[in-house]
Amino acid sequence: MEQPTAFPTAPQDVRREIRQGRWARPTAGLAPGYVQANLIVLPRLWAHDFLLFAQRNPKPCPVLEVTDPGSAEPRLTAPGADLRTDLPKYHVWRCGELEAESPEVTALWRDDLVAFLLGCSFTFESALLAAGLPVRHLEEDCNVPMYITSIECVPGGPFRGPMVVTMRPMPHALVPRAVLVTARYPAVHGAPVHIGDPAVIGISDLSRPDFGDPVTLRAGETPVFWACGVTSQAVARRARPELMITHAPGHMFVTDLRDEHVAAS
Amino acid sequence: MEQPTAFPTAPQDVRREIRQGRWARPTAGLAPGYVQANLIVLPRLWAHDFLLFAQRNPKPCPVLEVTDPGSAEPRLTAPGADLRTDLPKYHVWRCGELEAESPEVTALWRDDLVAFLLGCSFTFESALLAAGLPVRHLEEDCNVPMYITSIECVPGGPFRGPMVVTMRPMPHALVPRAVLVTARYPAVHGAPVHIGDPAVIGISDLSRPDFGDPVTLRAGETPVFWACGVTSQAVARRARPELMITHAPGHMFVTDLRDEHVAAS
Repeated sequence: MEQPTAFPTAPQDVRREIRQGRWARPTAGLAPGYVQANLIVLPRLWAHDFLLFAQRNPKPCPVLEVTDPGSAEPRLTAPGADLRTDLPKYHVWRCGELEAESPEVTALWRDDLVAFLLGCSFTFESALLAAGLPVRHLEEDCNVPMYITSIECVPGGPFRGPMVVTMRPMPHALVPRAVLVTARYPAVHGAPVHIGDPAVIGISDLSRPDFGDPVTLRAGETPVFWACGVTSQAVARRARPELMITHAPGHMFVTDLRDEHVAAS
Repeated sequence: MEQPTAFPTAPQDVRREIRQGRWARPTAGLAPGYVQANLIVLPRLWAHDFLLFAQRNPKPCPVLEVTDPGSAEPRLTAPGADLRTDLPKYHVWRCGELEAESPEVTALWRDDLVAFLLGCSFTFESALLAAGLPVRHLEEDCNVPMYITSIECVPGGPFRGPMVVTMRPMPHALVPRAVLVTARYPAVHGAPVHIGDPAVIGISDLSRPDFGDPVTLRAGETPVFWACGVTSQAVARRARPELMITHAPGHMFVTDLRDEHVAAS
């Protein structure tokens, strides 16, 4: 989460550096205080059902913006930006299979593509830290542990599948505060979906996450689970759209929204 | 708001009475404690843009449910209900013009129709009353005053237009509490959009609302404005879809959701 020395901190400048090929790594820690977003691009024929899926599952799929068909500019959350070039790394999927990894996707763009920007938990992790709560995977300098659960999302058209969650250990006495702090940010997954026994939501072994890295659960701590944006990508892959473009894991889109802009109001 | 004597109070029973033609009046006060919803039905070709509009304007257009194309059953908010028969009165619109008023719309239903259920302020009015806050139009037994403002909604495809708001006078000292109480219900318009001078949002005369009835603003009171569900109907009419079906004003859909189910979490 450390800001690289002499790297710009304003979101417009960060996106320019990325667009010009001077930043090809994960975006954690860039433009502190600004909301970062998951990207999913789908053909218009799939867009209504995906938006429906997101609307029915706002915890894992909090929608920050949906572009007009064919437009690569997120006019509401980052006017002037270009979603084809302003992320450091993209994944291109055909019928649910990863076809390519690419630093930009201009040549693939079509008039019928619709881009979805979904909230990402970086925002509420800043809020947890500011409230004196631990974020273990940052302490241990690894990726957040993610688990496929037994919680089925509400289907929307062809989009269906289980919810993926992240886990952050909290000292027993601080669990209520962790609920309250994250509940202020419904646009970035909001309050936890489960607290305590992992088996209740179908997780058999915390030390073996389905994605990301395991973290230490210390004595006196409760595992706390939040809905995760990876859900939407997993569900969209399973629907096997002819074309889908996403951010590569950790290589998010940096918006102009301040974290406080997505707090409940 | 009075519950008629011997009329059922469970939402399933209320819908059955309505379906069987035994209740043709406004639904205010029916099934106390349960969420009522605005209905807008559009052909599938218009549905994505309308959902986009709602997503971009969550204050006036809080989406409770969107049905699958062709389905008249709101499986998530009232399983088993039928949106073609379970509201007491419908309006049918062709190209933005009111064509008919009808107690049911079964004959008009098509395989490509999508129904949107949007939150309605009855829910937060119960919360205001429970918190000891006045709801003047209930005291004066009239309709809530509604005003067309100078606040432009964020467009979505062909859907665009000004936000419509409701106004409730609050004693100066109780205004903060009115903000906090309604903020708990983002799915039913949430916190106010404006507090104080009506001219700031383009309202020239509180005594002449654009819809509904004027209410008394007493000495020592501040006018408080909330986004209103009428916005979506006004905006949808202006887009002139070939067919649109809505509830008739005040004749809402009674869901199985309890008010507390739509509180922030």
